[in-house]
Amino acid sequence: MLGWHWLIEWQTPYEFHGHLIDKVLAEEKSSYQHIMLVEFKRFGKGLIIDGKVQSTLYDEHIYHELLVHPLLLSLDNPSNILILGGGEGATLREVLKHKSVRRVTMVDIDEKVINFAKKYLHEWHQGAFEDSRTKLIIGDGYKFVEETNEKYDAIILDLTDPIKDSTSYKLYTKEFYEKLKRILNNNGGIATQATSPSFSLEVYVTIYNTVKEVFKRASASYTYMASFDGLWGFVYGGVSPESLSKDEIDERIRQRIAGKLRYYDGYSHQISFSLPKYIRQEFERINKISTEKEPIYVPA
Amino acid sequence: MLGWHWLIEWQTPYEFHGHLIDKVLAEEKSSYQHIMLVEFKRFGKGLIIDGKVQSTLYDEHIYHELLVHPLLLSLDNPSNILILGGGEGATLREVLKHKSVRRVTMVDIDEKVINFAKKYLHEWHQGAFEDSRTKLIIGDGYKFVEETNEKYDAIILDLTDPIKDSTSYKLYTKEFYEKLKRILNNNGGIATQATSPSFSLEVYVTIYNTVKEVFKRASASYTYMASFDGLWGFVYGGVSPESLSKDEIDERIRQRIAGKLRYYDGYSHQISFSLPKYIRQEFERINKISTEKEPIYVPA
Amino acid sequence: MLGWHWLIEWQTPYEFHGHLIDKVLAEEKSSYQHIMLVEFKRFGKGLIIDGKVQSTLYDEHIYHELLVHPLLLSLDNPSNILILGGGEGATLREVLKHKSVRRVTMVDIDEKVINFAKKYLHEWHQGAFEDSRTKLIIGDGYKFVEETNEKYDAIILDLTDPIKDSTSYKLYTKEFYEKLKRILNNNGGIATQATSPSFSLEVYVTIYNTVKEVFKRASASYTYMASFDGLWGFVYGGVSPESLSKDEIDERIRQRIAGKLRYYDGYSHQISFSLPKYIRQEFERINKISTEKEPIYVPA
Amino acid sequence: MLGWHWLIEWQTPYEFHGHLIDKVLAEEKSSYQHIMLVEFKRFGKGLIIDGKVQSTLYDEHIYHELLVHPLLLSLDNPSNILILGGGEGATLREVLKHKSVRRVTMVDIDEKVINFAKKYLHEWHQGAFEDSRTKLIIGDGYKFVEETNEKYDAIILDLTDPIKDSTSYKLYTKEFYEKLKRILNNNGGIATQATSPSFSLEVYVTIYNTVKEVFKRASASYTYMASFDGLWGFVYGGVSPESLSKDEIDERIRQRIAGKLRYYDGYSHQISFSLPKYIRQEFERINKISTEKEPIYVPA
Repeated sequence: MLGWHWLIEWQTPYEFHGHLIDKVLAEEKSSYQHIMLVEFKRFGKGLIIDGKVQSTLYDEHIYHELLVHPLLLSLDNPSNILILGGGEGATLREVLKHKSVRRVTMVDIDEKVINFAKKYLHEWHQGAFEDSRTKLIIGDGYKFVEETNEKYDAIILDLTDPIKDSTSYKLYTKEFYEKLKRILNNNGGIATQATSPSFSLEVYVTIYNTVKEVFKRASASYTYMASFDGLWGFVYGGVSPESLSKDEIDERIRQRIAGKLRYYDGYSHQISFSLPKYIRQEFERINKISTEKEPIYVPA
Repeated sequence: MLGWHWLIEWQTPYEFHGHLIDKVLAEEKSSYQHIMLVEFKRFGKGLIIDGKVQSTLYDEHIYHELLVHPLLLSLDNPSNILILGGGEGATLREVLKHKSVRRVTMVDIDEKVINFAKKYLHEWHQGAFEDSRTKLIIGDGYKFVEETNEKYDAIILDLTDPIKDSTSYKLYTKEFYEKLKRILNNNGGIATQATSPSFSLEVYVTIYNTVKEVFKRASASYTYMASFDGLWGFVYGGVSPESLSKDEIDERIRQRIAGKLRYYDGYSHQISFSLPKYIRQEFERINKISTEKEPIYVPA
Repeated sequence: MLGWHWLIEWQTPYEFHGHLIDKVLAEEKSSYQHIMLVEFKRFGKGLIIDGKVQSTLYDEHIYHELLVHPLLLSLDNPSNILILGGGEGATLREVLKHKSVRRVTMVDIDEKVINFAKKYLHEWHQGAFEDSRTKLIIGDGYKFVEETNEKYDAIILDLTDPIKDSTSYKLYTKEFYEKLKRILNNNGGIATQATSPSFSLEVYVTIYNTVKEVFKRASASYTYMASFDGLWGFVYGGVSPESLSKDEIDERIRQRIAGKLRYYDGYSHQISFSLPKYIRQEFERINKISTEKEPIYVPA
Repeated sequence: MLGWHWLIEWQTPYEFHGHLIDKVLAEEKSSYQHIMLVEFKRFGKGLIIDGKVQSTLYDEHIYHELLVHPLLLSLDNPSNILILGGGEGATLREVLKHKSVRRVTMVDIDEKVINFAKKYLHEWHQGAFEDSRTKLIIGDGYKFVEETNEKYDAIILDLTDPIKDSTSYKLYTKEFYEKLKRILNNNGGIATQATSPSFSLEVYVTIYNTVKEVFKRASASYTYMASFDGLWGFVYGGVSPESLSKDEIDERIRQRIAGKLRYYDGYSHQISFSLPKYIRQEFERINKISTEKEPIYVPA
């Protein structure tokens, strides 16, 4: 029997990738998003938001470890952490592995996503929402950043891509990064997912440029994500993780992390910060930065 | 946002049709079949079995009325009816509209489908399973026909298509029709769904030929089914519904049917039995009949 | 090997149909359109314009015979005919079969399409472009109608669907039909393709309403077109073909047509003008007409 | 307008990737294969063989440079080279860049592919077929290897994947590698494409194991190939390219290669031989080797 129940993810209007769905496990529509948990034939359980594979048990650990640990291991004693987005709770899960962390504030706009995660995504958050250090806030991340009086050692942006007419594109601009800087402690840093070097290379580079413009120090990592059908990128600001050697990373993991990492170690660190030549060339070539007036979007 | 959650139905390995799914309402896997109830963007609620659109609220009434009424209105006083298949309960629903009917035995092999229908498909069966005239049997239709001691006035076959290596293909053969004849009262008749004149015209004609071979009198009707992406066919044996005029059909509906029909009336009757020229030509040309030794299959 | 070379035709943004391509036989891009001749696995040779199956050797004869003959056979002695569109030359081919026809003017905007047809589509036009009665004009049909001093017995519109932001949508409005009326002889009539009753029923009915508004007499026919994945409709103005009986049609074909028809005869005539009940109901319900100010479009 | 002309490549029966085709530039069917040159919207010109993207101007240089140079730069003075497959002529093009090379024998089974390449794929071979060192043989590579009396310094296998019931799967077995060893000079080596670590990781590892079994020394590299929708792997036998440092590679390129490389250099070398952790783990876990009796196949 030919496969018939498909997620067709459009990376651009001229590229689509079809993943066979074995079963729909849960589905909800909030006022913000269409949320669906499925069993994929290839990836096992996968979370789909608005038609995009958000994360799957097959490789979410690669994404979340690479978003969180290069930043936190580059900081001296990260204690007070802010996460924007990250509804599944997996970014939170990784942050909480750091022994130095005393408090994590997670701000997500969509209560339905959070309730969905609590109810169905235990394999993702693994109880992180119940950790006594976790403070969960339902609200608009942009507004939260403008209004909070607190200061953070690290801010992690686990957001949807900058899509035109969405609300998230503003969270990739110079103006927003400046707001972040104001609520960051001295020597603090940020990390953000940075879209796909395969499908939106210019966006990836522009996010890097914009972070660098504001934080002076910036680094970019990448990895292949099978469930995203291509490469995926991350950008870090205020820190220089790539200056840490393989052995330093392994040593810091040993000292500072409680629990196991599945992907990230000194070896994977080196791979992730060694960008392919044709990507490096684009870093040389493109000098665009994203502003509220001239924001960057993923192609749609 | 481009559509991303799709049923892709393969009519043949070289034709597929994609219908956008708005939401999955229920899903189950039995040992026989994968059953899914969805909300389609185009058709509203739809039942999908093993990747085939089985029936949708958009046009299931056309299918079920055309399967049932030409047969029952051609018979004198149909009282004891047998249905094989028809899990949604909509064929049953149509049969029960006939005032002359005293008893309907419905045999379906898949208890899970029946329970699914009872639980989720009220808009299809509309309570037909609870009618005191209904006798529901979970079991193999082929075996039931071989073993029953009862005689029926009408037998209605609402089965999946004759697919190679399935169990249903035997229920379209000469041998099986002969078994049906043995449990039919004098002047009784049968009706069967007969696959798509668009995608499997040879199968449609062969079913007609096979029914004619056994029952001597046979008729074929057809209609366009949007949710099946093409024409759909039906074959009747032992009766000659096409000999009834528009007015006779309207008169018999008035006298013999309790409740309303949405599609079938004298006018639709005439349309349905007026086969297009290129289909009639195939009836002239093809003289194949389906036997257990040389059965006919839909292309796959 | 699973099929890999596909035409995916989008009937609406939530319905697509995939037809396997065996080979691309010719392809051209004009300033107006993308033209492609392929060998389909299911339909044989097929012409694709801007991603829409325009006509295939499998069933183009049904479309073109039903567009042309109900109109011309309803007229007394059609002699001077105007065709707008119809680049393949198949509408022209059908018109030229009428012995009464002395002259056919065909106006098509896209010279590349015409040259493509002359070069590759002989099975469609069958030499019709070379007929001494044919007068071919490359130009804008709308303008031609405004500027011509001639009068015609019949005008046939074989146009692309009324798509938003296209130029063709204006050729389905009341204002345009009034222009047509001015260049029509007394007792003349028009025929137009009228989109799909399956995918754009409201447009089909609105075209009928608009034609009726202007020409007082209007009729609608339909047929199932496999290569269009659904039903297809036609509207005639100034004539009443449905009032002709089966026998009258057969008789007129015998007297007035040179050459063979493959689909259209008295029997097919009756079928084509017998609209299904649910379509008739929409004719009762919808009273919209299309104007330049409030035009009707197919969903896109 | 939604995209309508698609290559749908099936990586497995439960994963497909759609690439929009702008235009078909050339198409031929040989007795072995269906060959098509298209203009892709995303990748520019691309060669499709039997529905698989074979190579595109977007990234073919990555594939061909990584197949050829790690092997040839690991050898001392490679002079006499054998290529099996590689119809586009791009592997040949890369081999000819080595100043030490005196003679390249290329054996391809499909004359139509070669003629197609000569006629349409100049951007791939760039005249390599006309090089005086090139000796082109149309024939079965398997047989050639069994019958030749020559000895080679390097053998490069640029073959289609090991597909069940194809002829190519035998060219990935222990028995075949032993035949290769017999026609290899002392200190010679081989390189083979090794399928996708994303879609057929077990096959990739098994090819490595099999090469190692026969040649004792074996290495594996990989890269992300956008046009193949995932990672792609290569295996080298009889040599240890990964033991060469970044600087040694850069130095050898300078000394031994005439013309420019676009991707491969010391830096890219290091990246390509640094396999991700989860792939390394599979190298530990899987110890299967492929034999003619128990061959390995890609999933289909």
